[in-house]
Amino acid sequence: MNEKFNRLRLIRSANVGPVSYVQLVRRYGSAGKALEMLPELAARGGGRAPRIASADAVQREMEQTAKLGAQYLFLGDPDYPYLLAELSNAPPALIYRGNLSLLSHPTVAIVGARNASAAACRFSRDLANSLMNEGVTVVSGLARGIDTAAHQGSIGKCAVAVIAGGIDVYFPPENQGLQEQIARDGLLLAEQPPGTEPRARHFPYRNRIIAGVSQGTIVVEAAPRSGSLITARLAAEAGRHVMAVPGSPLDPRSRGCNGLIREGATLIQSVDDIMEQISHFDERAAGANFTYDLFETQNRPEKLRETAPDNHAPNIDTNIDADIDSAARQSLTNLLSMTPVSVDELVRQSRLPAASVQMMLLELELAGRLSRHAGARVGLSG
Amino acid sequence: MNEKFNRLRLIRSANVGPVSYVQLVRRYGSAGKALEMLPELAARGGGRAPRIASADAVQREMEQTAKLGAQYLFLGDPDYPYLLAELSNAPPALIYRGNLSLLSHPTVAIVGARNASAAACRFSRDLANSLMNEGVTVVSGLARGIDTAAHQGSIGKCAVAVIAGGIDVYFPPENQGLQEQIARDGLLLAEQPPGTEPRARHFPYRNRIIAGVSQGTIVVEAAPRSGSLITARLAAEAGRHVMAVPGSPLDPRSRGCNGLIREGATLIQSVDDIMEQISHFDERAAGANFTYDLFETQNRPEKLRETAPDNHAPNIDTNIDADIDSAARQSLTNLLSMTPVSVDELVRQSRLPAASVQMMLLELELAGRLSRHAGARVGLSG
Repeated sequence: MNEKFNRLRLIRSANVGPVSYVQLVRRYGSAGKALEMLPELAARGGGRAPRIASADAVQREMEQTAKLGAQYLFLGDPDYPYLLAELSNAPPALIYRGNLSLLSHPTVAIVGARNASAAACRFSRDLANSLMNEGVTVVSGLARGIDTAAHQGSIGKCAVAVIAGGIDVYFPPENQGLQEQIARDGLLLAEQPPGTEPRARHFPYRNRIIAGVSQGTIVVEAAPRSGSLITARLAAEAGRHVMAVPGSPLDPRSRGCNGLIREGATLIQSVDDIMEQISHFDERAAGANFTYDLFETQNRPEKLRETAPDNHAPNIDTNIDADIDSAARQSLTNLLSMTPVSVDELVRQSRLPAASVQMMLLELELAGRLSRHAGARVGLSG
Repeated sequence: MNEKFNRLRLIRSANVGPVSYVQLVRRYGSAGKALEMLPELAARGGGRAPRIASADAVQREMEQTAKLGAQYLFLGDPDYPYLLAELSNAPPALIYRGNLSLLSHPTVAIVGARNASAAACRFSRDLANSLMNEGVTVVSGLARGIDTAAHQGSIGKCAVAVIAGGIDVYFPPENQGLQEQIARDGLLLAEQPPGTEPRARHFPYRNRIIAGVSQGTIVVEAAPRSGSLITARLAAEAGRHVMAVPGSPLDPRSRGCNGLIREGATLIQSVDDIMEQISHFDERAAGANFTYDLFETQNRPEKLRETAPDNHAPNIDTNIDADIDSAARQSLTNLLSMTPVSVDELVRQSRLPAASVQMMLLELELAGRLSRHAGARVGLSG
């Protein structure tokens, strides 16, 4: 229990994100030890000690969560969804209400436009309903339009909603009833602490969870550059199926989906097309691009544990000493800019050991000088 | 002139189709000699002499064609469209009115449902218009719906219509004005003699010409099992680009196009998508699957003549003697049934020389006992 408390305190501390969280716990063996190290690491990264979440605040959050009838799920827990654990930026802690076992069934996400056409909403609802009848869990984001329709079609049995704000915050407000119904009959997931009003930056975080728990993501009506396309991209990056429902080129809401299909997404016309696709899901391929995953062996089902490729070796050498020389530090800092660049590229160009690069990046992040971006890329903070 | 007369007489004779026409002219060196041989060949094939078109009837047809302001175009003529000549069943004779040089520009076909939605018709018209502005010739079949819209969008400059009946027959009747306008400002093509009312079997013949003169075929709204999908299949078989405009899965008229995209057709949203596609057209690949083409070297542009793979060798050996033994005849006849089978398969299974098999098939066809089907397949006549 003390370790869980420390884990929550670690992820609630400033400058600690999902990636640095895993690196810290892996390097120092426990969240408690990692918390102790934060000031020193940030100093090495050239910044002030990050604001560490107070024990009181963490205690209050845990009490509030319990009062809401919600529970915590930590990365590494036996019932943490193993597909989500595959993500390099898997949420260290989730708060949930409802039936977690829904995520051990085949799971697909249905996402799309908030201002979707009536026809597309009907199609999404019917599709979700057919998936439910096939024993498939349907995930979406509780937004207006397609998300709402997908939940409505699968409500009462296999509806999973991931929300951007706190588990007790209703957004949009008119979906309060639906959110409560999903929490009761399905599964409601939130990454932010209770009481958090969703802000713009929270939506891509939510989207990675939607894509991450699913074998595949289906996009129904999406404008170019919309959040649904971000979810699709995150699904593709995680090695999951990307599917899209086509529409007339005359409707701007079809542009996103048609574009996805042009880029290789599978065109979906019916539930059969989805079932055919997810029957080909190769669990070993999912997450194969990710370079570390602290807890994966605990979460992967037995059959996967045996056959998984050995691509999850930690890339922070726990024997690395803190005293990386200042020339190396200067060399890495010179390579960084506001433009995100992949960590692999930094390793190549700096000619430094990968573990040293990772360590220095961690220190810079904790110092508040580095931001992590999608696709294992990093850049200087704005 | 006498040879042209004989060629027309040969193709207008019973049991002579585009494939047997080419084999006959190639084997006997001239249409006149082939006409003389027809009774003997049919007898060897076990049938009565086919009805040979009378010289009078052919004379009347030619006079009628001239009176209509139309002209003949024979396979092998220098201005016969070289892409069409690539087809194994290229039309031996076409009748046309208008500007034949339109087919020496980049050419695409736009085809689709007769009962198309207003939105799809508008989209087709706009697409055809944009193609016209790019200097692309637009071919269609003068049917109601999408075909009509495609012609309307490209009228006055680059509209090509291929019709199923005679060049003087208006079908559907309401397109009389459009047909005349295309004959005047664009190009109108017919394979059947003047006065021919279009019948069901004529439409697939027309479709092969639409696909055959085009670098690519775009399908806009098409029900499953519709004629437009036949055109798309013929285009694919001829090594041409197949493109389709997607639509909502809720509209049955989108099923055909969405299905084509699932099978690998390129999803088209705009004229840019088409231009990108046809810029990749590999003229050497077109027709590469076909095994004979009597006149190809005359029709291929210089650059193609130099680089074309040597895949057009005649597969009827002109030295083959007529006396194929009766055991061979029996063996081949036993392999045939009403179910179409590929000629290659017959050669493999019979273990007879390919040239002998082709000769016997020609004789059976002239005897009225054999039908040729798409994809170089043959079967016994019903």
